[in-house]
Amino acid sequence: MQLAIIGLGRMGADMVRRLLRDGHEVVVSDLRQDAVALLAAEGAVPAASVTAAVEQLRAPRVVWSMVPAGAATEQVLLDAMRSLSPGDVVVDGANSNWKDSIRRAEAAAGAQLGWLDAGVSGGVWGLAEGYNLMVGGDAAAFEAARPALESLAPPGGLLHVGPAGSGHFVKMIHNGIEYGLLQAYAEGFEALAAYPHAELDLAGVAELWTHGSVVRSWLLELLAGALEPDARLASIEGYVDDSGMGRWTVDFAVEHAVPLPAISAALYARFASRQAESFAAKVVAALRHGFGGHATKPLHAPEPREEG
Amino acid sequence: MQLAIIGLGRMGADMVRRLLRDGHEVVVSDLRQDAVALLAAEGAVPAASVTAAVEQLRAPRVVWSMVPAGAATEQVLLDAMRSLSPGDVVVDGANSNWKDSIRRAEAAAGAQLGWLDAGVSGGVWGLAEGYNLMVGGDAAAFEAARPALESLAPPGGLLHVGPAGSGHFVKMIHNGIEYGLLQAYAEGFEALAAYPHAELDLAGVAELWTHGSVVRSWLLELLAGALEPDARLASIEGYVDDSGMGRWTVDFAVEHAVPLPAISAALYARFASRQAESFAAKVVAALRHGFGGHATKPLHAPEPREEG
Repeated sequence: MQLAIIGLGRMGADMVRRLLRDGHEVVVSDLRQDAVALLAAEGAVPAASVTAAVEQLRAPRVVWSMVPAGAATEQVLLDAMRSLSPGDVVVDGANSNWKDSIRRAEAAAGAQLGWLDAGVSGGVWGLAEGYNLMVGGDAAAFEAARPALESLAPPGGLLHVGPAGSGHFVKMIHNGIEYGLLQAYAEGFEALAAYPHAELDLAGVAELWTHGSVVRSWLLELLAGALEPDARLASIEGYVDDSGMGRWTVDFAVEHAVPLPAISAALYARFASRQAESFAAKVVAALRHGFGGHATKPLHAPEPREEG
Repeated sequence: MQLAIIGLGRMGADMVRRLLRDGHEVVVSDLRQDAVALLAAEGAVPAASVTAAVEQLRAPRVVWSMVPAGAATEQVLLDAMRSLSPGDVVVDGANSNWKDSIRRAEAAAGAQLGWLDAGVSGGVWGLAEGYNLMVGGDAAAFEAARPALESLAPPGGLLHVGPAGSGHFVKMIHNGIEYGLLQAYAEGFEALAAYPHAELDLAGVAELWTHGSVVRSWLLELLAGALEPDARLASIEGYVDDSGMGRWTVDFAVEHAVPLPAISAALYARFASRQAESFAAKVVAALRHGFGGHATKPLHAPEPREEG
């Protein structure tokens, strides 16, 4: 089929490649013209803007936004909706908040456009292994985009999960689960590293468990690969960022009173990982000193330090 | 090779079958004579007791205990150690506490016996897929048992992880991780079930995620299989038992000051699942009433009930 992909970052560019491999005609656009030129050299049709991309499509047009969630997605979807005609379809493949997707789907419906919110999992492995696609939106739009969706997904890796918003909701929960899984493995390996009677072969154990154990998973395979050259991960800092999906999962849990203790613990562990110093720990130390005379550790006088 | 397997429960019996398939000579014993007879009919050599099993073996003898952890394991290992001769090897394949395994290994060493503590993962799937084996103990004992170990494990699923105790320690942490993984999936699906705008196809989502998503795993495949016929699990109670390995993981964390927030949350969620009524929740309700006048829910007068 023919479609436009707007946004040629890591995910978008690889998705274009996977679509081209399957013989689709892909019009591409990105603010970075070098990214457009690169994919044009691989067979995509270059366009200078969202509007220009729309102009290259035949009706019914399908425009798929793969720019980052937030302001960039809002702008691309607004530009696309302005340029498209009734019966065309707009797809948001970013990690957008599902409430934004419900709002945008209503705007699309107001303009008689079809809408899909596509949760996309697979990261840098998606080009080779396919992207797992959780798609919300109306059935007609899903059918219009189906040939591209089927090319992007591995066999079995595509589902129309429900109405507008539900694709991004399911992706959000997918990522919330991911927070919990990562933390479970992380804590287990922290405990293994603390074994008092021997220095255990953490890389060997991770690799072992990928063969027939109950905890085997793709994430464990990734971990075995990471530990193999650097079993104590000496080369990286224990600092963990988040891109918002875990926060939204806990926001949802709070709004709807769903108890998520392990996923919340995983989210808070990420926040804690970024603290050079914990004020809460200082408070507890100060109070233990206050009521029980327990020693506090004085902070060393700060060294004079360079700016930057 | 030739060895004895003591304990023909679900795991032990299937392990005997896997060993027989590979041409090993397996002497079997169990308190239940019907279990012995069943495996004798499948090609194992029956023995009436641990001592009788030992008498059927040629030196260097290998006796593998697969009875439940605790008193039963203690008794079988004691019987075996009394019957064996210097140079023989005793293996504990139960989910024993790693500290017990260190103590028992010392007793074995005192009798000049080799010792292995084998953490075994695979459950009811082990017969077909192989058992993941985490083995602690001395290298000579590992080599003596290697042919059997290699038959039991799938390719890549066997590792000599360290000295005595470390096999059961690694298995304990494996199960601790398992607690966290189960809870992460569980919470995610609880959130999916709470989606306010549509009844999501939970079975479909679980199955979808097994194809190329970041959260794919063997446990997720099991979950997809469980949800497929009964997407809201209406047929089972939300009551979760534990067999001790999660408690020991948290015990270890407490003793060695290793922060395991998500695994601990998973363990506590199991405890909470067994409470018909939470006293802590009553306390919080009473205190909110006390300081803020917030309503409490009166307990309905208990119905007269039958004993039992």
